[in-house]
Amino acid sequence: NAGGAALLVEEPHHDGSPLYLPAPPTRLGEEFDVYLRVPHQARVTRVVARQVHDGEGFPAPAVVARVDAGATWWRARLTQVNPVVSYRFLTDAGTHNYRWITAAGPVDHDPTDAGDFKSSLDPGGPDWLESAIAYQIFPDRFARSGRIDPALTSAAADDWAQPAHWGDAPKWSGQGASGQLYGGDLYGVREHLDHIASLGANLLYLTPVFPAPSVHRYNATTFDVVDPLLGGDAAFVELIAEAHRRGMKVIGDFTSNHTGSRHEWFQRAQADLSSPEASYYFFGDDPHDYVGWFGVPSLPKVNHASASLRERMIAGSASPVRRYLRPPYNLDGWRIDVANMTGREGSDDLNAEVARELRAAVRTERSDAYLVGEHFHDFTGDLPGDGWQGVMNYSGFSKPIWTWLARPDLPIDHWLGLPWPGWPRLPGAAVVASMRAFSAIPWPARQASLSLVSSHDTPRIATLTGDPRLVEVAVAAMMTQPGVPMIWAGDELGLGGINGEDARRAMPWDTPATWHSGTLAAYRALAAVRAGCDALRSGGLRWAYTDANRVAFLRETPAESVLVLLARGPGEPIALPSSAIGVHDGADSDMLYGNAPALVRDGSVRLPGDGPGVWIWRWRRSALMTTSGG
Amino acid sequence: NAGGAALLVEEPHHDGSPLYLPAPPTRLGEEFDVYLRVPHQARVTRVVARQVHDGEGFPAPAVVARVDAGATWWRARLTQVNPVVSYRFLTDAGTHNYRWITAAGPVDHDPTDAGDFKSSLDPGGPDWLESAIAYQIFPDRFARSGRIDPALTSAAADDWAQPAHWGDAPKWSGQGASGQLYGGDLYGVREHLDHIASLGANLLYLTPVFPAPSVHRYNATTFDVVDPLLGGDAAFVELIAEAHRRGMKVIGDFTSNHTGSRHEWFQRAQADLSSPEASYYFFGDDPHDYVGWFGVPSLPKVNHASASLRERMIAGSASPVRRYLRPPYNLDGWRIDVANMTGREGSDDLNAEVARELRAAVRTERSDAYLVGEHFHDFTGDLPGDGWQGVMNYSGFSKPIWTWLARPDLPIDHWLGLPWPGWPRLPGAAVVASMRAFSAIPWPARQASLSLVSSHDTPRIATLTGDPRLVEVAVAAMMTQPGVPMIWAGDELGLGGINGEDARRAMPWDTPATWHSGTLAAYRALAAVRAGCDALRSGGLRWAYTDANRVAFLRETPAESVLVLLARGPGEPIALPSSAIGVHDGADSDMLYGNAPALVRDGSVRLPGDGPGVWIWRWRRSALMTTSGG
Repeated sequence: NAGGAALLVEEPHHDGSPLYLPAPPTRLGEEFDVYLRVPHQARVTRVVARQVHDGEGFPAPAVVARVDAGATWWRARLTQVNPVVSYRFLTDAGTHNYRWITAAGPVDHDPTDAGDFKSSLDPGGPDWLESAIAYQIFPDRFARSGRIDPALTSAAADDWAQPAHWGDAPKWSGQGASGQLYGGDLYGVREHLDHIASLGANLLYLTPVFPAPSVHRYNATTFDVVDPLLGGDAAFVELIAEAHRRGMKVIGDFTSNHTGSRHEWFQRAQADLSSPEASYYFFGDDPHDYVGWFGVPSLPKVNHASASLRERMIAGSASPVRRYLRPPYNLDGWRIDVANMTGREGSDDLNAEVARELRAAVRTERSDAYLVGEHFHDFTGDLPGDGWQGVMNYSGFSKPIWTWLARPDLPIDHWLGLPWPGWPRLPGAAVVASMRAFSAIPWPARQASLSLVSSHDTPRIATLTGDPRLVEVAVAAMMTQPGVPMIWAGDELGLGGINGEDARRAMPWDTPATWHSGTLAAYRALAAVRAGCDALRSGGLRWAYTDANRVAFLRETPAESVLVLLARGPGEPIALPSSAIGVHDGADSDMLYGNAPALVRDGSVRLPGDGPGVWIWRWRRSALMTTSGG
Repeated sequence: NAGGAALLVEEPHHDGSPLYLPAPPTRLGEEFDVYLRVPHQARVTRVVARQVHDGEGFPAPAVVARVDAGATWWRARLTQVNPVVSYRFLTDAGTHNYRWITAAGPVDHDPTDAGDFKSSLDPGGPDWLESAIAYQIFPDRFARSGRIDPALTSAAADDWAQPAHWGDAPKWSGQGASGQLYGGDLYGVREHLDHIASLGANLLYLTPVFPAPSVHRYNATTFDVVDPLLGGDAAFVELIAEAHRRGMKVIGDFTSNHTGSRHEWFQRAQADLSSPEASYYFFGDDPHDYVGWFGVPSLPKVNHASASLRERMIAGSASPVRRYLRPPYNLDGWRIDVANMTGREGSDDLNAEVARELRAAVRTERSDAYLVGEHFHDFTGDLPGDGWQGVMNYSGFSKPIWTWLARPDLPIDHWLGLPWPGWPRLPGAAVVASMRAFSAIPWPARQASLSLVSSHDTPRIATLTGDPRLVEVAVAAMMTQPGVPMIWAGDELGLGGINGEDARRAMPWDTPATWHSGTLAAYRALAAVRAGCDALRSGGLRWAYTDANRVAFLRETPAESVLVLLARGPGEPIALPSSAIGVHDGADSDMLYGNAPALVRDGSVRLPGDGPGVWIWRWRRSALMTTSGG
């Protein structure tokens, strides 16, 4: 009954947020309390937690910690025997009513541990991340300052580039696309910091800035300097300094998975297979026989089994990973390209080791650095540990939102690489199920992951949905879910793009009449709602309701409770049991977004049946049945 | 609708058996074909496979390989890029009908890879395993030969043992239980090989035989000799030789996780913390400060970070793991005690390394050795690879069967370690869901795992079900599911036991009138059905039907198709679509077990509504709609 209405708010709930795990363990062997909130509707009479220690499941009996008008709060004491401990709760609600409460949702049979909650000693991302909203910039397409020496552009044109006019449409494929040089630069980025700040964004994520024979620059020729075509080191230093003056952070984009074939290391390696650099790659007997990423010869895959490579690229003091975090640059961290494939090649799987080494390297330079990995696939096995702090959450955020909001007639014949006739359009239950499946990671990792609705590798949300009202729904999801919202530059202006290449349209600074003012206003307003609301930034996530067209969820701290209703289309008005929501009858809510009150009367919270639309309500402490922490 | 009827046979199906994966890859980089069988009822119009290479999902378009009267067979070509490749199938059946077919079952949202099918380069267990039926013996309780020197018993009694009479009831707890010496020995085992052979069993699994101050002997004092109380090396050699003469195999039980505190290694370590042996354990500053398994001081946990320990225990030519596989012993392999915890301690996780080292060690001695790990918990992450060939399949077989067949009023207050009021009794859908969840492992690992309904660590199935008719159902499940059936000595006589200690009842050889003749007959008959049927030993597993009281499934090879119906109680007569089953209208079946024909007429296979009961039917090649392989 995937399209049917489900009152998820009546289910028992736990997550790793402070309401449910108030004092996370900080050392091996430490005990800690976990809480399960059981709405009275669930009629649960017994709870026991199960935790995995050294590969063995151990029970942890739960006791009733308190009872409020809406729920019974069960408490179990767990022990952090391993760096990551997985756990779940078994609830008994009478005959044959046997349910495991897991991060992946309730399960009525004995599951594997894959969907378990995870407690980790890893504190996750830096503190500043909690209030971050990221803004992704693809430098070639963002803004031209006019300060770049035209001779540099001519030289690039003689070599690999096809200079384009700022208003040109991007080409959609291959060499033509990656050579189409619009000429944006880092001075240009600096000129538009006001615009970025106006969106509430305070974390710039720049795609690569190292010299490369392409506009995407994922095929660097060196890591030693910033591309002069972008303004070089001077423009980079100036941009970061100015961002810092404004209280913004800046992260770069590093490829630990491959270099360009014209990279100085690869050139040396290919010239001399007995050179140290030859160990950095996967060579056969011949210098032309090597492993290219995805089989692409221009992107030789890096061999992390080489200690020398790892020292030079990551661990050493002079490594690019470390050097750009120091003065004069002061970068605040890295997004790691194809983090999911880094260190993986055939029989080698060094992914976790490389991630740990990257983390150690950035931590050596800056205790508050941010390390986030690109991951389009199943990151749940890659996140627990002390490597990636978080991922670009395509699987647990973007894909569920896309498959809910995509227009059914999207004119493309593949779906994120799968040959598929148009994009799937799934019901709300699939959004909830997918988001839950990928939330079986430590809570700090979830909070340190990026929630995004488009990037330079995907269709833009405006094209994908074909409806600005659905763009608003998608943006609202990004601003209200756990994790750091990431705005892909141009989305806020309503730019389109049918795929990643087409999405790399130049920012139309000079034609503000083409901007979609409603979309821009929605970005600003929704970012402001997030900025003004603790629960949206740090609260737990409790699913409340779903049907085909709607999903509703709560973000909760001990001090406030926020209810978010997202509708891709209309439906019947919704009535949720107010006791399960946890608010007193008659309680007033702040209407943070949307144009309808949430009426709490006669035991129900009544929500509108309109759609598409976004509604966000907040109840403060006095309205809540549970007012004490954990 | 967990208790409702589900026609699972109408779902698309794949598994790793020859019908669906006819030519498993044997080297890295090799391409191989996988087939998805799509019953016409599923109305699927498009299929694409997704495989994970180096952490990235890649599509593999599927094409229609053939169409028969019952199903369309889609074929996709995958590549074994890594030692283990996970994959699943996306099926399209029109608007909003988006389903992934995974090993864990069909999923209508985007899941993680945890439930994926797994293709492995590891060939799994030895060839002889396919026709194996195991018989577990706890030597102290199996049979007394009268050939053991009474002085040895007296010496044990002076030390740790409380000699018991053969007819005594076992004590249920702690020291009293582990000291209760009945005096069974290995000569006694040899005397009863006829009985074991009469069950169709051909693989003896002996719990530990090394000297130890307990009757279970999991706390060995040395690995150098077989316990003289059991007849010593001579009895062990004789037993194995006689078993081999009869075409039986014999595996031992090795504790790689801990030794006894009176083990000679530990004694030496404790006497001198600078000795090499001290590195074998986890000592603090004081010889009395060490890690005991489960915190038990008499079971010091072994430290596999010690290369010296690993050489001495596992890898070296003189190691016990290797030595007993050679003449004069010629043991055929090992069951490894608490395999799930071996090598795991706090921040160390060397489990996979230890498993690989164990595999390498046994393979060095015998290319056809069997290595199986005890695993009460989630083994899905521990199995893929080249370590354990299989596990004692508690999670994917025993627990699902137990939670389906347990009597609701079982008078115990815990459930496999969880404090729980009596055992849960779940519907057939939970059996299927759990078995599916734990089948997301390479097919060879599934086939090399032990299916068991009781062991020396659990209640006996007779007590758990409280009904010989349900014992028959449980035994039928064990004899018809993938994996090696394992009979726990005494179950076939109808012995009871409310927990693991109580289950260690002495075999009542002298009182055959107490044997449950119906149960014994069922064991023999069901083992014979398995022995006489290729599909039950090597066929794929396709779920056909479930409701609260019944589960039905198919075991299929290109040459035959076997339908198994298990009922814990009665229900309505069942009608399954014969085209989805894949048999022609009017086709006759062999009735391999049970007393009702499976009538195939008017497009349906009609099955009886009686219960409890077991029915097994076989259709041969001429009856099948699909007669060609893969």
